[in-house]
Amino acid sequence: MTPVNISKAYRLLNHGPTTLITSAHNGKRNIMAAAWACALDFDPPKVTVVIDKNTYTRELMEASGVLAINLPCVAQIDLVQKLGSSSGRDLPNTDKFAVNNLTTFDAQQIAVPLLAGCVAWLECKIIPEPHIQKTYDLFIAEVVLAYADERVFSNGRWHFDGHDKLRTIHHIAGGAFFATGTALQASN
Amino acid sequence: MTPVNISKAYRLLNHGPTTLITSAHNGKRNIMAAAWACALDFDPPKVTVVIDKNTYTRELMEASGVLAINLPCVAQIDLVQKLGSSSGRDLPNTDKFAVNNLTTFDAQQIAVPLLAGCVAWLECKIIPEPHIQKTYDLFIAEVVLAYADERVFSNGRWHFDGHDKLRTIHHIAGGAFFATGTALQASN
Repeated sequence: MTPVNISKAYRLLNHGPTTLITSAHNGKRNIMAAAWACALDFDPPKVTVVIDKNTYTRELMEASGVLAINLPCVAQIDLVQKLGSSSGRDLPNTDKFAVNNLTTFDAQQIAVPLLAGCVAWLECKIIPEPHIQKTYDLFIAEVVLAYADERVFSNGRWHFDGHDKLRTIHHIAGGAFFATGTALQASN
Repeated sequence: MTPVNISKAYRLLNHGPTTLITSAHNGKRNIMAAAWACALDFDPPKVTVVIDKNTYTRELMEASGVLAINLPCVAQIDLVQKLGSSSGRDLPNTDKFAVNNLTTFDAQQIAVPLLAGCVAWLECKIIPEPHIQKTYDLFIAEVVLAYADERVFSNGRWHFDGHDKLRTIHHIAGGAFFATGTALQASN
């Protein structure tokens, strides 16, 4: 794991990968899939993320004011699909981490678990915007700390070649995803 | 070109491709690159898009209340980079379409030009949210009509195999992009 300079954190999300959102409050924790996460500003980095009002994650993140964005990879698509099609609210005596035998580690600046095996993590504090939260399920958050798996991201750049299982993924619908593909460079 | 059922329009953006935003007002028109466009709702489909307040596009879209999202492909990366690094405001007697010899066609429900050679197009009407527009340069819009190049999108699904030059692209930074990669299906 390597720290990501905060001014380059937007590059973790700029190519539009799907995400896993982790949250925690008052001894409860949850993880859900969210494809609709997007960069909003460079430095300090801000992001938007859409979290349906019926989700357990919504309850935890609104109570705590924080969330983490984990970027899963090709090796995790079955897990992402599974986490995206079940609710932590249906598990009153356990949670989705335990049920799925997930290994976590602690975020550094917020009290939220992060998922091991992902390739990047963004610790975020919600900037309260009640109108758009209520009307559109849309949240704005500031990224306060970011880090990545240095095998695929370092010095502000993704480099997936030779690590196909660690490529980020892009959700389409149902269980269908794309892997992040060939790197291309404009000639101008 | 094939119409995209409006309930499936979110699938054009769900995998996080970079976009070209076209706009027009009072005889002026513009085109700019925007990586920060994201799905916001399913049906009716809504999107978010971040448009800096210094851009010419911002002036035109705020005046007209509409914009179009064009999805460029691998064949167009030099053009995307070029359009993303110049302003239509610097061309008082012409515009970026003329300067770059771009072929356009008319949108159907809004008065905005669309760029030929792209692989999908979403016609959008801005839902006014002055606070977030002013504070974050963040716009919410409803997609009123969508269509795609049927060689790569039909029946609500992308299918890029055999059409590598028509793959959508994902912007990282500078002139660096990823092509949309291998299709993957979760096994659960």
